[in-house]
Amino acid sequence: MEVELRDYLQGVILNTYRSNGFQRVNTPIIEEAENLDKSEGGENLNLIFKILKRGDKLTKALENQQYDDLADLGLRYDLTLPLSRYYANNRAKLMLPFKCIQIDKVYRAERPQKGRLREFVQCDIDIIGTDSIYAEVELIHTTAKALLALGIANFNVKINDRRILKSILLGVGFEEEQLASVSIIFDKYDKIGTDGVRRELEEKGYSKSAIDGLINILNQGRITLEMAKELCDHVEAMNDLDSIMKEVEKLSKDQYRVTFDISLVRGQGYYTGTIFEIESADFKGSIAGGGRYDHLIGKFLNETVPAVGFSIGFERIFSIMMEKGAVIPNQKKKVVVLFETSQFEEANVKAEELRKEYDVALYEKPKKVGKFLNRLKEQGYSEYFICGKSEGVEHID
Amino acid sequence: MEVELRDYLQGVILNTYRSNGFQRVNTPIIEEAENLDKSEGGENLNLIFKILKRGDKLTKALENQQYDDLADLGLRYDLTLPLSRYYANNRAKLMLPFKCIQIDKVYRAERPQKGRLREFVQCDIDIIGTDSIYAEVELIHTTAKALLALGIANFNVKINDRRILKSILLGVGFEEEQLASVSIIFDKYDKIGTDGVRRELEEKGYSKSAIDGLINILNQGRITLEMAKELCDHVEAMNDLDSIMKEVEKLSKDQYRVTFDISLVRGQGYYTGTIFEIESADFKGSIAGGGRYDHLIGKFLNETVPAVGFSIGFERIFSIMMEKGAVIPNQKKKVVVLFETSQFEEANVKAEELRKEYDVALYEKPKKVGKFLNRLKEQGYSEYFICGKSEGVEHID
Repeated sequence: MEVELRDYLQGVILNTYRSNGFQRVNTPIIEEAENLDKSEGGENLNLIFKILKRGDKLTKALENQQYDDLADLGLRYDLTLPLSRYYANNRAKLMLPFKCIQIDKVYRAERPQKGRLREFVQCDIDIIGTDSIYAEVELIHTTAKALLALGIANFNVKINDRRILKSILLGVGFEEEQLASVSIIFDKYDKIGTDGVRRELEEKGYSKSAIDGLINILNQGRITLEMAKELCDHVEAMNDLDSIMKEVEKLSKDQYRVTFDISLVRGQGYYTGTIFEIESADFKGSIAGGGRYDHLIGKFLNETVPAVGFSIGFERIFSIMMEKGAVIPNQKKKVVVLFETSQFEEANVKAEELRKEYDVALYEKPKKVGKFLNRLKEQGYSEYFICGKSEGVEHID
Repeated sequence: MEVELRDYLQGVILNTYRSNGFQRVNTPIIEEAENLDKSEGGENLNLIFKILKRGDKLTKALENQQYDDLADLGLRYDLTLPLSRYYANNRAKLMLPFKCIQIDKVYRAERPQKGRLREFVQCDIDIIGTDSIYAEVELIHTTAKALLALGIANFNVKINDRRILKSILLGVGFEEEQLASVSIIFDKYDKIGTDGVRRELEEKGYSKSAIDGLINILNQGRITLEMAKELCDHVEAMNDLDSIMKEVEKLSKDQYRVTFDISLVRGQGYYTGTIFEIESADFKGSIAGGGRYDHLIGKFLNETVPAVGFSIGFERIFSIMMEKGAVIPNQKKKVVVLFETSQFEEANVKAEELRKEYDVALYEKPKKVGKFLNRLKEQGYSEYFICGKSEGVEHID
């Protein structure tokens, strides 16, 4: 039953994406290790499952004690890297800008525990080959439409821009090479608060005035877009963000909100501009995230290709829908036809006739029919038919 | 476009399976290495992608020079092993017999080349928990229905039984411990002929009288079921095969054939009884294969659980359908709406209206509309609409 609900929910998301003119692409889960290594995946790079070399290559690496070089392949930790490589290899035959869907599995070497799976599904849409702000607008609105189609309401799209973050951090006195590390600490602001941020920055030994500058900003309460304009000297980034938010607000028709959030960082190193994340008021934690990664594809090509993507964390959606007790609408009802060995042919004719309307399973008549019917009910079967008995489908209740 | 055709074909197979009362299960592609090792996968065991240990475990294995023990996990090489483990872990809540579907990716460390992929899709149905011959009958007929639904006709289900093979090989004088190796050679009979089989058996140094005995049988031409009854003293196996073939013939209504083939071996070590394979007269090589594996699940449980499965090789199906120039029927037509920056809102309203009927993509108006429309056509778009121009959808031709 869980698999059926998963399939149904993924179908709703896929259909929304397709209806909005995105097309599905299929990328392999196995990637060259060197591609994964250069992907700037942030902390996720520590969670890559590496595939052992085989045959002579392995023998050679072991003989030469090249213990850092025992793997030549790895499992993807997200869908953005394989898509970037796919685009680099196939762009000659793709429509530009390329608007694509990936609903597929990714892998992270986490210790299996609640909420941390080593295999999980992401639902991504990406637009590659344009730096137009309408790419961001379309991704945000289409992702929101998928959530609305799933019956998830009351959510908020948080938005920020790495360029704004950079400008503000440089503005208060941090240095260029400190930004990655400062951002990682700043990313935890929601969890550890102002004091936590201060403590972790101090532990790193950064300049007191830079730390004070940042904390002063945080102490002003929620930073509005207007306030950010005062702090940030990247005019283009501020204008882009302003336009994206205005356009999304028009499309949203109050079905969801979009808010500027200066503390939104996102972990991946590859983001270059806009970043976004969706939070539901009804459920803790983020349910979708994404951003612009204008330099990732360039690692596989001799040119820069602008790109932006938005990813729904499917496992989160699935657990939300399970909590809500979601049911699959308009399901083809399931019937079982029970037969005794001698009645196999007759049972098949009956089953085939019923299949015009139902999904029909054939079972040899069990010793304990009652117990068997209970089990059927648990599995979502609603009706049964016993061969040789009076004609007609009977309801299981 | 290829991805869409793949999705469509997999959908046809899935719907056929579901309509026949099978239910989808989801198993992980990562398995414990020790489970893969004990799976009796035959030559496929040499093609397992192994995942490098991580952290302390890896350090320890390297320090102790345990070079055979650098991997703790691996990628599944088929869907039968993960299903067996899944069944062993979950049987308390499953309906018995368990009739299930897996349409999913498997991995083999082949050198990438035409017809040999390292990642490919298999479409399996299995029935676990019954030794009834109706399980075989149902699997064969349901798999055949899926092929017929895809428009593949003119195919033949070849069937044999490992127990018959064993009885005949022992009968001519091979020894129990030689059977696995003799079977591997015999499996190549279609390719290398009688002379090839004789040569390879002689190279292994097997008894001349056993080799002569086997070659004598092969020299009789096609061995019918009646002839096999003379050679095989496993009465139960012969009767089972006879019944399965008769029941399948009744269901097939001459839409496909089922024939006994003494030379059918199948590579996997885990088969214990019936084995089958589907060949199409129109395309070389097999398109589906399967058999009974009554001892595999027992490796994960303290009891023997009978099981039988049938797997369609999806990549083969896909290339057949591409050759045939298959098209997706009743596809929701695709339209593109072109807009200039200032018309974004208007374009969105238009797109949303068209989405009631079509899949609709939004694109900013390109400099060269003609060239862009050509590209759209290649991607399966059939109509377009330019914002600001006269109302109405125009056909792309």
